[in-house]
Amino acid sequence: MISKPYLLFLGDAKDDLAIKTAAGINYWRPDWCIGQMSFPNAKSSLGIREMNVKEAVANGAKTFVIGVVNAGGVMPDEWQSVIVEAISAGMDIASGMHSRLSSFSEIAKASKQNNIKLHDLRFSEKQFQTGKGIKRKGKRLLTVGTDCSVGKKYTALAIERAMRTSQMDVTFKATGQTGILIAENGIAIDAIVSDFISGAVEWLSPDNIDDHWDIIEGQGSLFHPSFAGVSLGLLHGSQPDAFIVCHEPNRANMRGVDAPLPSIQEVIDQTIQNGKLTNKKIQCIGIALNTSNCKSKADEYKLEISKKYNLPCLDPIQDSLDPFIEIIKSI
Amino acid sequence: MISKPYLLFLGDAKDDLAIKTAAGINYWRPDWCIGQMSFPNAKSSLGIREMNVKEAVANGAKTFVIGVVNAGGVMPDEWQSVIVEAISAGMDIASGMHSRLSSFSEIAKASKQNNIKLHDLRFSEKQFQTGKGIKRKGKRLLTVGTDCSVGKKYTALAIERAMRTSQMDVTFKATGQTGILIAENGIAIDAIVSDFISGAVEWLSPDNIDDHWDIIEGQGSLFHPSFAGVSLGLLHGSQPDAFIVCHEPNRANMRGVDAPLPSIQEVIDQTIQNGKLTNKKIQCIGIALNTSNCKSKADEYKLEISKKYNLPCLDPIQDSLDPFIEIIKSI
Repeated sequence: MISKPYLLFLGDAKDDLAIKTAAGINYWRPDWCIGQMSFPNAKSSLGIREMNVKEAVANGAKTFVIGVVNAGGVMPDEWQSVIVEAISAGMDIASGMHSRLSSFSEIAKASKQNNIKLHDLRFSEKQFQTGKGIKRKGKRLLTVGTDCSVGKKYTALAIERAMRTSQMDVTFKATGQTGILIAENGIAIDAIVSDFISGAVEWLSPDNIDDHWDIIEGQGSLFHPSFAGVSLGLLHGSQPDAFIVCHEPNRANMRGVDAPLPSIQEVIDQTIQNGKLTNKKIQCIGIALNTSNCKSKADEYKLEISKKYNLPCLDPIQDSLDPFIEIIKSI
Repeated sequence: MISKPYLLFLGDAKDDLAIKTAAGINYWRPDWCIGQMSFPNAKSSLGIREMNVKEAVANGAKTFVIGVVNAGGVMPDEWQSVIVEAISAGMDIASGMHSRLSSFSEIAKASKQNNIKLHDLRFSEKQFQTGKGIKRKGKRLLTVGTDCSVGKKYTALAIERAMRTSQMDVTFKATGQTGILIAENGIAIDAIVSDFISGAVEWLSPDNIDDHWDIIEGQGSLFHPSFAGVSLGLLHGSQPDAFIVCHEPNRANMRGVDAPLPSIQEVIDQTIQNGKLTNKKIQCIGIALNTSNCKSKADEYKLEISKKYNLPCLDPIQDSLDPFIEIIKSI
């Protein structure tokens, strides 16, 4: 368990996508976030109260959460100084980086001296097994994407919320560091040794009662040349009964690489083709559209896509999700 | 570099597949193997000279190679005693296990006391990047499979050998611990953090001159519910111009799980479908049949499959690979 409330560290965030961890926590768990801390050259902000380490501690902050990506996986020197300062002021540290916090000697030293907890969200002490592919009881929904960062986590969390409102038995299953911070539970699947991807997901979403739904946060895309292996192992381990394709209109290129986006139809076909290996009944129940970058055309896009695929097409942050829930109830 | 020659440790191997690492080294590099060491209850043997640690050292053995799988990933106590004995007798240790040798305190202690090298083949000190998906120069062939343990490594090594005989510019690229022991090089791709699968393969098979071929050892199967994520990341990172489907006739079930084998056609279609993401020119150039378990029907099977797919179908250990080489030369 990570002590709350949090100070969200944004560093010198170069754009909004760089702070998606901080933004996700602040959106889904605003009560846990006491403020943000950014450097003067930051290009992005959460719009919550800016405070330094001293002010945050005075206001009761218990954990310093690294809410920004470190470009290229390298920890900048200025981050280390701030983290050591937060430790010295008595805050625990939470990080989703690929390197353990304790691998930085200054941080390790300070945390020992101050008896502070270092939460490395990407690391699990659990020893996983390889996947078995055996059908488990209970039901599962997976969010998949035409690309990375299109809204798979938000969609899963919004569906969980709507299903709870409908008195359904449902659990959000986090598969990335931001989801873990929101759910206080889960596995960062992209940090698992690749032999155990599907096995780790089988562990994350075990046998359950027939009426229970696990809503599993998707990762990457089957069409992303960097991460498709993770997406496929996650699909096989999830053995979803239902999936939703998440998409952001107007995106020209797959994030971070020189490759075009697949069509929604290609994602549906490929997901069914691969997914039926571990669940023959897999079906697409709708499309979730992230319309934050195309607000004026949002309704037009949703109508067009819904007609084309004969499935509900909704913005999970803007719209009622009843059309999704209705289909889920029928499964 | 691992010091040679080797003593191949077989433990209490329960069947021939359990010692596939030892068998692979002994088949491809017999000159490096001075003998085998097995427990009295072992059910499998390489048919080479049986010797204990003392005899092996007296005969010049330099490295004790763990050539058998540890079931369930657990290191049996008797293995530890033998490994410590080998260390005390002056041998280095080579292991392809998922746990580091140094994580066992007795082994760590003994290796320090005796100034012995512990080779953990599944671990790389290299920090990989995520895959970029950018087309690299030079040509690449990947062996893929209908299942695990069907001959992907043997096929790749046999093709490398045949291409060398044909004076072609070729390099075998190992992606598993046995391949690494044979090639003295490579990456155990199933031990890579899953975010970096395709990136690690991009590093393993970098830009090269136009006429050069990398023959990349495949892993798992796109249809294996435990390992398909690894297979897909390997396919995307390899961006092969050519692939060969490896298959063992008469196998009823995917290895280790309750799932039927896909057809060769399904493997060809899925490999092209996924592979064209990073190489639009990907093509299947043939089928490699492991006929070790169906010798009397081998010719019949090869003829039938070759006719059905209109591609050469060969046993890479028994047959001349000229039909494969001819197609490779035309690419």
